[in-house]
Amino acid sequence: MSGFPAPALAQGIRQLKLVTDWPEGSPGLQSSAMRLAKTISEVSNGRIAIEVFPAGALVRPFETFDAVAAGVAEMFHSADYYFEAKSPAFNFFTAVPFGYTADELFAWVHYGGGQELWDELSGQFGLKQFLCCNTGTQSGGWFVDEITSPDGFRGLRYRIPGLGAAVLRRMDAIVVNVPGGEIARSIRSGALDAAEWVGPWLDMALGLHKAARYFYYPGFHEPGTGLTLGINRRVWESFSPSDQRLIEACAAGEYSRSLAEFNANNALWLRKLREEGTVTIQKFDDSLLRAFIKTSQEVVAEAGSGDELSRKVYASYQQFRASIMEWSDIAERAFLNSRRLV
Amino acid sequence: MSGFPAPALAQGIRQLKLVTDWPEGSPGLQSSAMRLAKTISEVSNGRIAIEVFPAGALVRPFETFDAVAAGVAEMFHSADYYFEAKSPAFNFFTAVPFGYTADELFAWVHYGGGQELWDELSGQFGLKQFLCCNTGTQSGGWFVDEITSPDGFRGLRYRIPGLGAAVLRRMDAIVVNVPGGEIARSIRSGALDAAEWVGPWLDMALGLHKAARYFYYPGFHEPGTGLTLGINRRVWESFSPSDQRLIEACAAGEYSRSLAEFNANNALWLRKLREEGTVTIQKFDDSLLRAFIKTSQEVVAEAGSGDELSRKVYASYQQFRASIMEWSDIAERAFLNSRRLV
Repeated sequence: MSGFPAPALAQGIRQLKLVTDWPEGSPGLQSSAMRLAKTISEVSNGRIAIEVFPAGALVRPFETFDAVAAGVAEMFHSADYYFEAKSPAFNFFTAVPFGYTADELFAWVHYGGGQELWDELSGQFGLKQFLCCNTGTQSGGWFVDEITSPDGFRGLRYRIPGLGAAVLRRMDAIVVNVPGGEIARSIRSGALDAAEWVGPWLDMALGLHKAARYFYYPGFHEPGTGLTLGINRRVWESFSPSDQRLIEACAAGEYSRSLAEFNANNALWLRKLREEGTVTIQKFDDSLLRAFIKTSQEVVAEAGSGDELSRKVYASYQQFRASIMEWSDIAERAFLNSRRLV
Repeated sequence: MSGFPAPALAQGIRQLKLVTDWPEGSPGLQSSAMRLAKTISEVSNGRIAIEVFPAGALVRPFETFDAVAAGVAEMFHSADYYFEAKSPAFNFFTAVPFGYTADELFAWVHYGGGQELWDELSGQFGLKQFLCCNTGTQSGGWFVDEITSPDGFRGLRYRIPGLGAAVLRRMDAIVVNVPGGEIARSIRSGALDAAEWVGPWLDMALGLHKAARYFYYPGFHEPGTGLTLGINRRVWESFSPSDQRLIEACAAGEYSRSLAEFNANNALWLRKLREEGTVTIQKFDDSLLRAFIKTSQEVVAEAGSGDELSRKVYASYQQFRASIMEWSDIAERAFLNSRRLV
């Protein structure tokens, strides 16, 4: 690892290490990181060669942020809300309960002042960050028993991350964090009563549909989860303006592609789930959703009430949210509802 | 124009002409084409230089497709439904009444077999085509008088393009095609009773909110209008694999960016419209929407009933639509509705 933090240069080829927080071979997540690395390599005609390391291969899971900030690797692919201990403001760039959909998040970041605030926030840690992937609207998750009222969460052992976890804790659930590969076993053993992961595609690959009888929607806690390409700031600044635009364009393109892949595959796996007929697919009751909204407002406001920069990020997020929701109401939401009139 | 169809080569720089069907300076449309050209130029470090010509500057409006097929220019930026006279199948890659949203269209093209069918269709005309822009869900348009039932369209002089026009004609409207810059004047003079263009941002730039008193939503006829980068096939094949990936990545990135720009600006201009308070913003009545659905099904089925390739495109579109709608129902649609519970 000589010559760090400047990446290795051999015959004009830059060799970079990208560390992720996704298990090796995990569809949607690790595969999106690998596709992004491949695209950057191909578009640069091999000048920028990126080796991708899955979770645990080069650095420990969730140490990706620190590793790239310190220069142990040049890039990471992860979810910023894993790093909320650094600043609660990072949540706003990943997923917020009752916050943005995938398209709304991209609109805020690129046309609502989000990227400038993110640059300021990331800059404090020696990083430059971009949106490079989105899972789309996640699901509410898999439950052993039916939930009919907010009281049903009292004492429920529920696997859920980020601000969603804070919401459920306030509703007296017991939040248990378990790695993806352990969830199905934990439900079967009784260690978990419920768990959310992403959506039908990834969840069924983990066998969650074989461990629980109820599948709830919508995933109010992660309505459009954005994933991050993080780059060591000195490495970023060492790129030519042309290569900076190259990385930006590839990240923006992968945002569209990954979202499309999630949506197409979630649709396929949802149909398989329906065909198997062993799981009840159910919307959270409106009384539950109202309780989630009320608690989410408190939790999100707290995440945006700390230091000055967190307050600025929260204010920008909330202002843009009010505006974009009015538009979504008469555009995509009104259309999606009208398409189902019979 | 010597050396055509191979683009001019000078010191390794490829100089290409891109013709559009958008007026010079038009926000959202022409600006997206220019941003795409700029991104390709920057990412390629100036090796691929693209000069952008607005509608009428190099070839006549709507002759962009033929011009690029014939090699008069190397690229076009337009909407494929303008070329439905070549094949009705082109409609499916732009906008279909009650069809795909922006995200669903990208999912079908990239993960539902759409691109392969598009390659086959475009190949017949010597072209290669990509999605490179999306306007998001369009609006229903501007009406001089309130419309309360399907009968209200009888004899109504309505500016609307594509398959939406076929739907309205079947409801006995008189479809009148008027260039964007003429719409406001035509409404004021009484030549038009109603007109749709895109949405608040672009429509208000044309002054439509000053010419009509009712603004209707949703734009059932164009729920997520995709725009096309068309490239002369021999020019496309003359690019190195690396430069082909470069163009694909830039087009995919511009799809996200343009959609974000439309959504952010439509939200701003919708708020301005509300603040002005001179126009009534109204949802099409459910009885109207049901009539639109019924007529749209007939019109879309006819567009997909011609030659063998059109039938294949229609079958693929419909199959993926059924699947993705089930997913959208429990994902984005369920979320957008739950976000508004109070």
